[in-house]
Amino acid sequence: MHINSGEIAVIGLGSGLPQHLTPEVLEALEACEVVAGYSRYVDFIRERIAGKERIETGMTGEVERCRAALAAAASGKRVCMVCSGDPGILAMAGLLFELRARDASLADLPIRVLPGITAASLAAAALGAPLQNGFCLISLSDLLVPADEVRQNLRAVAASALPVTLYNPAGRKRRDLLAEALGIFREARGADTLCACVRHAGRPEEWRWVGRLTDLPEDQVDMSSLVLIGGPRTRYENGALFEARGYAEKYLADGEA
Amino acid sequence: MHINSGEIAVIGLGSGLPQHLTPEVLEALEACEVVAGYSRYVDFIRERIAGKERIETGMTGEVERCRAALAAAASGKRVCMVCSGDPGILAMAGLLFELRARDASLADLPIRVLPGITAASLAAAALGAPLQNGFCLISLSDLLVPADEVRQNLRAVAASALPVTLYNPAGRKRRDLLAEALGIFREARGADTLCACVRHAGRPEEWRWVGRLTDLPEDQVDMSSLVLIGGPRTRYENGALFEARGYAEKYLADGEA
Repeated sequence: MHINSGEIAVIGLGSGLPQHLTPEVLEALEACEVVAGYSRYVDFIRERIAGKERIETGMTGEVERCRAALAAAASGKRVCMVCSGDPGILAMAGLLFELRARDASLADLPIRVLPGITAASLAAAALGAPLQNGFCLISLSDLLVPADEVRQNLRAVAASALPVTLYNPAGRKRRDLLAEALGIFREARGADTLCACVRHAGRPEEWRWVGRLTDLPEDQVDMSSLVLIGGPRTRYENGALFEARGYAEKYLADGEA
Repeated sequence: MHINSGEIAVIGLGSGLPQHLTPEVLEALEACEVVAGYSRYVDFIRERIAGKERIETGMTGEVERCRAALAAAASGKRVCMVCSGDPGILAMAGLLFELRARDASLADLPIRVLPGITAASLAAAALGAPLQNGFCLISLSDLLVPADEVRQNLRAVAASALPVTLYNPAGRKRRDLLAEALGIFREARGADTLCACVRHAGRPEEWRWVGRLTDLPEDQVDMSSLVLIGGPRTRYENGALFEARGYAEKYLADGEA
C-alpha cells in the first residue's frame, strides 16, 4: 500500500492484535510519515511506528486530531489515521470527509479508507454466529447523533426480527440511553430475548456474558463493551449463540439430525 | 493460529485479495489438513492450499458442504471452512453451529470463528464513509429468511434514519424483492435519497454507482453487488459518500471552515 505525498490513509486495526492486522494496513503504517490517532489505539502499533511523527489526542479530541491530520496531508506529508475496528464504522473516516467538505482548500485532498474488522464481527466470532442472517448496528453515543434520533432508530429496528448490536453502549456517566434501549427491546421482543455483552472483543482480556435480556448485568457494560440483542431466530446451544436459518426445515433432511 | 485435531476453523477472506487476509487466517490455512468451501472462494486461496484435501461444492451446496466439513472434523481432521467477507455475516458459521446443535454426537466438536472484513466495510471504504454512524444489514435472499420476514424487516428499518446495506440483492431470476425493497425506501425516505451500488467491492474489477434512489440502475445489480440506501444524514461531496455527524454544528467551531 503506497501512500502518496499529501494523502491520508484511514486505517482499521480491528482488535489491535497483530493477528487481525491486514497486510494492506501494515504497509500503510510502514509507508507513512505521520501517524494520527487516539493514544489508546496508537498504543496497539507504537513499536511499528518508532521514529515517525505522531498526532495523538485523547478520546474527546477527535475534531482536533482530524484537523491536524488534514493539515499535515495538505502540507504534503503521507499521513495515516489509525482507528480501531473498521475506520468507516463509528470511527474517523466520516469526520475526515466531513471536514474536507467544509473547507474548499482541501477539496482535492485524497482520503483513502483501508477497511478493518469491526467490533460486531469480533464480538460475534467470540459468541458463535449471532449476526448470521443480518443485523442492525446502532451507537448509543449522543455525541454522534442526537439522543432523540437514537431513540427513534431503536424503536424502528426493535419492530424488526433483526439482532441489534449496540456500540458505545454506556460511559461512566452516560448510562440512561442504555437503560432506555433495553426497555424498548424488552417491550418489543420480550424479557426472555437472548442477549449478550462482550468486552474487549477479540483481545486476550475479552469478557463475555450471554443470557436473557432482563438479566443483562448493566453495571458491567462500559465503553469497551458491545451489547447484542437477539431476535426470534437467535438460539443458544452448546455454548454458542447463533441465528438459525429460515430454510433449515426445508433443507436439513428429516431424520438425519 | 493452531487448529486442533477434530476442530473446524471458519475463516473470513474479506475481498479474497492477499492484502485483506489477516495473519490469523493465513496461519489457519497453513495449519489445516482439509479445506472446505464454495469453489469461487477456494479459488482465492487455491495456491496456498496445494496438496491439502478439499471439500468443494457449488453455491447451492451449503448444507452438504457444512455436513462434510463436520464429518471430517468428527473423524479427527483439522478443518478450515473458507468464506468470503466475514464468516459470521451471511456466510457459513451460523449453519455449522445449527447443524452441530441438531446432532448430539457432534455436541463437543469445537467450531472457532476467525473474523474477516465484511462486504459492507469493503463497499463503504470504496464509497467514502456512508456507514459511519451505524447502519442495518439485510439480505434479500429468501433462502435464508422467508420473504415475508424480509419485507417486515425492510419496513421496520426504513422507518429509522439508519443507512441500509442490502446483501444478496438480486439473482438472475430473483429480482422481485429488490424492486419491492426500493419501493419501500422510496416511500419512506423519498425518491431523492442517496443510494449506491458496489460490485466486487475491494477487488480490481470493482464497479461503483452513486446517485438518487429513483435512478438506481436495477439491471446492473447482481449477486456480487451490495446496494446501499442512505439516510437523512448521507451526503455526497467531492466524490465521497459519507454520513455527517450529529455534533458537527456543535463542535466544528464557527467561521473556521
